[in-house]
Amino acid sequence: MPDLDQYIQDSKAAIDQALMESLPPAGSSRVADAMRYSVEAGGKRLRPLLCLATAQVLGAEQKTVIDVACALEMVHTYSLMHDDLPAMDDSDLRRGKASCHAVFGEAMAILAGDALLTLAFEIISVYGQEEQQATKAVRIAYELAAAAGVKGMIGGQELDLLAEGKNLTLVEVEEIAARKTGALFSAAVRCGALAAGAGQSELEVLSNFAHLTGKAYQIVDDLLDSKATAAELGKPVSADLKKAKATLPALLGAEAAQARADQLYRQATKELQKLITDAGLLQLLAHRLIYRDK
Amino acid sequence: MPDLDQYIQDSKAAIDQALMESLPPAGSSRVADAMRYSVEAGGKRLRPLLCLATAQVLGAEQKTVIDVACALEMVHTYSLMHDDLPAMDDSDLRRGKASCHAVFGEAMAILAGDALLTLAFEIISVYGQEEQQATKAVRIAYELAAAAGVKGMIGGQELDLLAEGKNLTLVEVEEIAARKTGALFSAAVRCGALAAGAGQSELEVLSNFAHLTGKAYQIVDDLLDSKATAAELGKPVSADLKKAKATLPALLGAEAAQARADQLYRQATKELQKLITDAGLLQLLAHRLIYRDK
Repeated sequence: MPDLDQYIQDSKAAIDQALMESLPPAGSSRVADAMRYSVEAGGKRLRPLLCLATAQVLGAEQKTVIDVACALEMVHTYSLMHDDLPAMDDSDLRRGKASCHAVFGEAMAILAGDALLTLAFEIISVYGQEEQQATKAVRIAYELAAAAGVKGMIGGQELDLLAEGKNLTLVEVEEIAARKTGALFSAAVRCGALAAGAGQSELEVLSNFAHLTGKAYQIVDDLLDSKATAAELGKPVSADLKKAKATLPALLGAEAAQARADQLYRQATKELQKLITDAGLLQLLAHRLIYRDK
Repeated sequence: MPDLDQYIQDSKAAIDQALMESLPPAGSSRVADAMRYSVEAGGKRLRPLLCLATAQVLGAEQKTVIDVACALEMVHTYSLMHDDLPAMDDSDLRRGKASCHAVFGEAMAILAGDALLTLAFEIISVYGQEEQQATKAVRIAYELAAAAGVKGMIGGQELDLLAEGKNLTLVEVEEIAARKTGALFSAAVRCGALAAGAGQSELEVLSNFAHLTGKAYQIVDDLLDSKATAAELGKPVSADLKKAKATLPALLGAEAAQARADQLYRQATKELQKLITDAGLLQLLAHRLIYRDK
């Protein structure tokens, strides 16, 4: 197994290259430039990384999964672009850079988001036209659509919008996280598994792993956000706190939240041990996601 | 062949029922209600009708194509919802009813549009999981995505937004119409053909038919719009004219525009004669679309 840092670096480079090749050419239209801007704005490429790592653990070659990985990142990026819009979370910043609508205007940000969502499915349909891949493609498209739709991300964003300023219960906070973040997180692993030809039992184990890891990831994200707020003086409090959005650490306290993340990581690890193949890469990746400091 | 009026009435009833069954239940969420509101607001269901009629001409049973027809209507409806948004065409009315964002607010209209686009691909992916349908499904998904994407509807909407207040040439006007309306019109016929198992030569003939019919339909739409404006005193001038959007009738004059629509209809009819099967239903439908008075 390769060194994790090297693996992440190489995979990110492959993902970035494939993304840029899949997007409409720079300068071909304003929508194209808006799409490229938001995809290039980057981020950690966690979903495509999870997809590629899952496929690798199951023995698939990277080049047979890279398109699926790109589709996941496009769905993720579209959701950020639309969530940032003035009518939604009204955020002019995304990862320290101006958000898409702040640069290209609202109309172009709406259209470019729509275009990324559409392109994700176009890529999967092209992937499915390769020999013997149609059956995989329709299952992958289903995973993507279900994770992105009203039972997944869109429903989560709705709950999030409706929750502003309200006191949420722990159950409600977890429901929002499961739909906003967890659904596409799990889809990333499941799509990687499907592309690699996983059987039903492997798929179930990997789904459980993804579900547990996604929950832990969200808790750690909220923990880091709340710490950053306290530590970096002079910086406005985080967007979530400002809008009084409840998080699990805010409800349980930092210590209990961290304990919960630890427990979820241990459970996720246990799931991986049920696989016949060596899932060390996925375990290392989960560890990196959960025990990070930024 | 059945009476055309009866055919349209029966097919619309089947389409409406399938659409309502495919959408998330009323009252299940605000996004669900916004989706149902816009789909129920209706319209002529032209794209699903074209899809079903094409499949029928090729001998396929309606029940094997109805899901594909629904997906087309969902993509069409999502595009209207997003086009109507304040940041885009800023229209509070759609077919005489309040537009989605006027009723549910901008955030819900954005999300509900996203959800309809996503659901369209979910439906195709479920359709593709039926026995022997995966190969058809990936081709249908590709048609939908390509028609909806930057080379189709989204690109057309961008050009339309950028064209406001400018003097367009005939070529530019036709380019916008081809992408905004023509692309999904053609996809409707092609998806119906693919679902019915059309061969390459049938697909080409039907694509030509759809392309010609779509162009004529757009001209007639613009003609009716300009006539309505003159006739109905006291009503504000049409949205297109108010924003000084160029149309083919405005550039060529009503008489030349009608002559062009007539010619396109004759060409479309000629294409159909190349089919071995009886395409009388499609010819009647095209005639109805082009020689209508409202």
